[in-house]
Amino acid sequence: MSETDRRFMRMALSLAARGLGSVWPNPAVGCVIVKDGIVLGRGWTQPGGRPHAEVRALAQAGRAARGATVYVTLEPCAHHGVTPPCAEALIAAGVARVVSALTDPDPRVAGRGHAMLRAAGIAVTEGVEEAAARQANAGFLSRVTQGRPVVTLKLALTLDARIATVTGASRWITGPEARRRVHLMRATHDAVLVGAGTARADDPDLRIRDLGILRQPVRVIADSRLGLSPDSRLGRSAADSPVWILHGPQVPIGARAAWVERGAELIVCQIDAMGRIDIADALTQLGARGLTRVLCEGGGGLAASLVRAGLVDELAVFSAGRLFGADGTAGLASLGVTQIGAAEWKLLRSEPVGDDLLHHWRRVAPVARPRIP
Amino acid sequence: MSETDRRFMRMALSLAARGLGSVWPNPAVGCVIVKDGIVLGRGWTQPGGRPHAEVRALAQAGRAARGATVYVTLEPCAHHGVTPPCAEALIAAGVARVVSALTDPDPRVAGRGHAMLRAAGIAVTEGVEEAAARQANAGFLSRVTQGRPVVTLKLALTLDARIATVTGASRWITGPEARRRVHLMRATHDAVLVGAGTARADDPDLRIRDLGILRQPVRVIADSRLGLSPDSRLGRSAADSPVWILHGPQVPIGARAAWVERGAELIVCQIDAMGRIDIADALTQLGARGLTRVLCEGGGGLAASLVRAGLVDELAVFSAGRLFGADGTAGLASLGVTQIGAAEWKLLRSEPVGDDLLHHWRRVAPVARPRIP
Repeated sequence: MSETDRRFMRMALSLAARGLGSVWPNPAVGCVIVKDGIVLGRGWTQPGGRPHAEVRALAQAGRAARGATVYVTLEPCAHHGVTPPCAEALIAAGVARVVSALTDPDPRVAGRGHAMLRAAGIAVTEGVEEAAARQANAGFLSRVTQGRPVVTLKLALTLDARIATVTGASRWITGPEARRRVHLMRATHDAVLVGAGTARADDPDLRIRDLGILRQPVRVIADSRLGLSPDSRLGRSAADSPVWILHGPQVPIGARAAWVERGAELIVCQIDAMGRIDIADALTQLGARGLTRVLCEGGGGLAASLVRAGLVDELAVFSAGRLFGADGTAGLASLGVTQIGAAEWKLLRSEPVGDDLLHHWRRVAPVARPRIP
Repeated sequence: MSETDRRFMRMALSLAARGLGSVWPNPAVGCVIVKDGIVLGRGWTQPGGRPHAEVRALAQAGRAARGATVYVTLEPCAHHGVTPPCAEALIAAGVARVVSALTDPDPRVAGRGHAMLRAAGIAVTEGVEEAAARQANAGFLSRVTQGRPVVTLKLALTLDARIATVTGASRWITGPEARRRVHLMRATHDAVLVGAGTARADDPDLRIRDLGILRQPVRVIADSRLGLSPDSRLGRSAADSPVWILHGPQVPIGARAAWVERGAELIVCQIDAMGRIDIADALTQLGARGLTRVLCEGGGGLAASLVRAGLVDELAVFSAGRLFGADGTAGLASLGVTQIGAAEWKLLRSEPVGDDLLHHWRRVAPVARPRIP
C-alpha cells in the first residue's frame, strides 16, 4: 500500500462525500481512474443512488481506462440490481488494477465484487484508507450491519445550554451564518428529525433553502399521538417533499386520514412506558426504509430519548455568546445520569461560524450508565 | 509610529504579561531598551509591584542606555512613592527617546510622566499598540477608573452546561489538563473568588500547586452569613496565604472572632433583598484593597449574581465531552432574561485542552435587559 495509493484514495473519498445526503439507500461512493499518474476519470454516486461512481468514472475515462488503476471507496457491486454490476463494467473496460478502501457489508456483495475482479485477472488491493472510508460510510454501514441510520444531534445553545428564555423567546439563539450552516448539514443527511413539540411550537418547514439542492431530505416527525396539524407548514408541503410521521399504534382515525390525504407517510412505532415513541424501534423502521444519515434538530425531549438510548453518533453543538440562566429552557431534557465515568464524547473539531462557535463531538463509549428508576 | 516601534512594543507587552496576577495593586508593565536595533535591557514589574519595569531594564542596560530608545507599556510614573519616579530615572540615564503605549490614568501620573520626559528634552511617542496595552492593563485601568477589578468567570461544564449529576456527583467534569489550566489561570489573577455554597460543598484549598508561584492569589469567599467553618481547608491555611471573606453586616460574633484568629480578613458588604452579598459593593471593596484581576470559580448562584450585575468581563468556558441532562445541576443560576437582543459575548479564541474544549468570550455589550420582577 503506497503513499500514491493513499493519495488517490483520499481524492476518491472527497468525491464520495459529494453524495452524502442524496444517494440513500445507497452508499456515497467515489471513484478515480488513474494511468501513469494522470487522472483519466472521476465519479461519485449520483442523486438517488445511481449511476454508481465507477460507471461515471469509466464513462469519463472512455477507452483510456484499459490498463488503468481504479480507486474506489467501497468494493464494486457484484449483483444485478437495477443496473449491471460495476465489477463487470470494470472487467469489460479492461482495467489492470482495482484499489478499494472497504469490503461492502451488503450480503449481496460481501467480497464477491473483489472476487469477481480477481477471477478476471485484475490485481486487487483492499483496505487502503479503510478507517477514513469507514467513517465516510458510517451511515450506510450502520444501516446494513445494525439496521439503523447514524444520528447527528444538532444543538444550538446559549453558553449555559439554553434554547429559550424563561418567557419562551427562542429566536434567534445563533446568528444567520450558523443557521445557514444548519441548512448545509441538512444537505449531507438523508433526513431531518424533530419532535412534535418543536414542530408545534415553531411550525418549521425543515427544507433546505437557497442551496440548489436536487433532493430534499425526508422530514421526519416523532409525534406519538399524531397531534400535529395537517395544516402546519409540514402538512401543507408534504405533497412536494417527503414528510414521514412516527406515531404510536393508537391515534385518531381522522388524523391518519388527513395526513395520508396530505401525502405524508405514516409509520407506526412502539411506544415506551411514558407514552413516547420508542426511539430505537423508530430508527430501525427508518433504516428499513433506507435512511442512512439522520440529523435530529430537537427538541430537548426527543434529543434526550436518543442520548439515553445511546443512539446519537455525533453531536454538532453551536454555542452562541449568550447566557439565559437556569430559568431558561434546557436544550436537553433529563437523562438520569448519576455517576461520572470516562467522557463519552470525543472532540472532533471546532470552528467559529459567524459569531457562534461550532464544535463536533463523536461518541466514544457505549452508553452504560446507572439510571434513576 | 513605525512598524519597528510596534514590534518592540509588542515585545514589551509580552514581558508585561509575566507580571499579571502577582503585581497588584500596581499595573503589570513591560519595558525594552533598544539602540541601533539591539535590545540592551528588558524588564517587567516584579512580584509585589516593584521594582518597576523601567528600573529593571535600565539596570540591565547600564551606561549603554545613554542615547537609547525606551519602549514601555504604560506611561512612566512621575510621583515620589516608595521609590523615586521612573521618569526621573530615565532622564538620569540619558535616554534619547521614550515610546509608550498608554497614558497612566492614575491621577498622580495622568500625563505628568510624559511631560517630565519632554521637559528634559527626551522625544516621546505615545499610543503605540494602545489597544493591546489597554487590554493587557484592563484590570489596572478598571481599578483606577471604575474602582473595581475585572472579573473572569470560569465555567467547567458538560456540553449541556451541568456541573453535577442529579445525585450531586461533580468530580470530575473536566480532565486533568483542564484542571491544570485552571491553576495557570489563577496564577494570572490577583484573587480567586468562590461562593460559600461551593466552599462548603467542595472544601477547596484554591491555592496554586506545583507551578513555582511566588505570590499566591488572594482567596476570596462570598459568604453573606459567615457560615463557612474556620476549620475548613481555607480556614486552616489562612495564616499561610491570604483569605478574605465578604460577608453581610449581621454575622455571629463568635464566627468573626474565629476567622480573625485564623488570620482571615473580614470585609463587611451590603446585602441585597435576597440576603445575598451585593456583588457590586463587594467588587468595589476589593478594588479599594488593590485587586485588579479576579477569577470567579463559581458556584452557580455567585456566577449568576455577577452576570446579572454586568460585572463579568470575560468568560472562560471548559466544555467536557459529557451530557448529564436537565436533572443535573445547572452551572449558572437564574438570570431572569426574557428577550433576545444582540449577543453579549464575543468569541476571543478556542482550543482543545486535553479532552476538553476551552473557549474564551469577552463581554461586548453593556447588560441592559428586561428582568422578571
